[in-house]
Amino acid sequence: MKINVLLSPVFADELYYSGKVTAVIDVLRATTTICTALANGAKEVIPVASVESAVKVSGGMFGGLTLLGGERNTKKIEGFALGNSPLEYTQEVVQGKSIVLYTTNGSKAIVKAKFSSKLFILSFNNLNAVAEKLLSLDKDIEILCSGRNNGFSLEDTICAGKLITEIMKVKEDAELSDGAKISYNINKTLGKNLHKVLMESDHGKILSANGFDEDLNYCSKLNTYDIVPLYSSNVIKISH
Amino acid sequence: MKINVLLSPVFADELYYSGKVTAVIDVLRATTTICTALANGAKEVIPVASVESAVKVSGGMFGGLTLLGGERNTKKIEGFALGNSPLEYTQEVVQGKSIVLYTTNGSKAIVKAKFSSKLFILSFNNLNAVAEKLLSLDKDIEILCSGRNNGFSLEDTICAGKLITEIMKVKEDAELSDGAKISYNINKTLGKNLHKVLMESDHGKILSANGFDEDLNYCSKLNTYDIVPLYSSNVIKISH
Repeated sequence: MKINVLLSPVFADELYYSGKVTAVIDVLRATTTICTALANGAKEVIPVASVESAVKVSGGMFGGLTLLGGERNTKKIEGFALGNSPLEYTQEVVQGKSIVLYTTNGSKAIVKAKFSSKLFILSFNNLNAVAEKLLSLDKDIEILCSGRNNGFSLEDTICAGKLITEIMKVKEDAELSDGAKISYNINKTLGKNLHKVLMESDHGKILSANGFDEDLNYCSKLNTYDIVPLYSSNVIKISH
Repeated sequence: MKINVLLSPVFADELYYSGKVTAVIDVLRATTTICTALANGAKEVIPVASVESAVKVSGGMFGGLTLLGGERNTKKIEGFALGNSPLEYTQEVVQGKSIVLYTTNGSKAIVKAKFSSKLFILSFNNLNAVAEKLLSLDKDIEILCSGRNNGFSLEDTICAGKLITEIMKVKEDAELSDGAKISYNINKTLGKNLHKVLMESDHGKILSANGFDEDLNYCSKLNTYDIVPLYSSNVIKISH
């Protein structure tokens, strides 16, 4: 088994993912939010790569069944029902709903990897569930970190490293690329206190300054949910 | 003092560097080759971002005073006198010469950062000399890793981390960005046996398969040279 980590979506074009098994990470906050929405009973999450697509996709649906969610540079978008804080996506709000999600980094990264044969959504919140799923498939793995503003982010890299660590408990001889090695090793040094890492990361500092301290706590929790969200035919649902 | 590491040139546009103090790294092999050429008496190295520029720049000079060097995807370029192996840049060959250098990653990264107020060339071979220079300037620092094919590379990241480690021996309270943190920490875990890291890195494996094992050994050596190459007015010379 070969494992590669793309530290940023800018490192590969769309067709790179063709036929590959991919896990996408955006710890702060898109993939954590997607896990939360689905765990709380949302029918599906539809990630989109532009605000225009969000409006277009939702336009044809009955208002009550669809919710627009997301953010642009940390702020909720005008006219959207929800922001990108996972704490907004309660059962009361999302049960049975289709969520159209646009975010600065995560939803775009997911759409970029759409040619993958299997495309999973990963956060600290559902790490072991995704690791088990990938082990059961036993294929080479691409881990795509959404990063931040066409760059990289420490928290996504650590999450990738933690996934690799779980997988290597079973597949000790997995072959790691440079990206996989740096992720694996950074988790060894910084992955013990996730809440601290998130608070001190570039993105975490910005979220904290915007009043999202509770999100940082929530997004740092490991294995809150035992679900594997799968992107297929443009929508994300829980994989069974 | 703030320290940032750009893990790949794709993470920032040219004007990002305007007015900044920058150190560029391409351990395998451009910045190692530049240090070697200058240490062995080359008058200057002129990095260019395209083969066409290399031919254009050198065209107007007297043949005997200028040498074209570089590679495209590890291979020497037809019509060029030299490849990108530092071992070719002996005193006998380069003494007193202007070297026009085109490489797949490093020379392009240097040119991309040309708006920096100070632009230094860094490799394992001259690490402490650059660290001392940066400490004497006492400004915020950008470290640009050339990476590989618009991606990142493990060896450049470790070199960035080793530079930060040297600087933090004096500036203990330097403020590290996400990129600086990952570099600093990856040097802690993988930076002890540089030759091994280079041999097992994605780029190192390719160089080894192309017969450049000696280069990997040479490029992994720390502080072979006590020189600080400075890019200014489009040419790189030793800074005094």
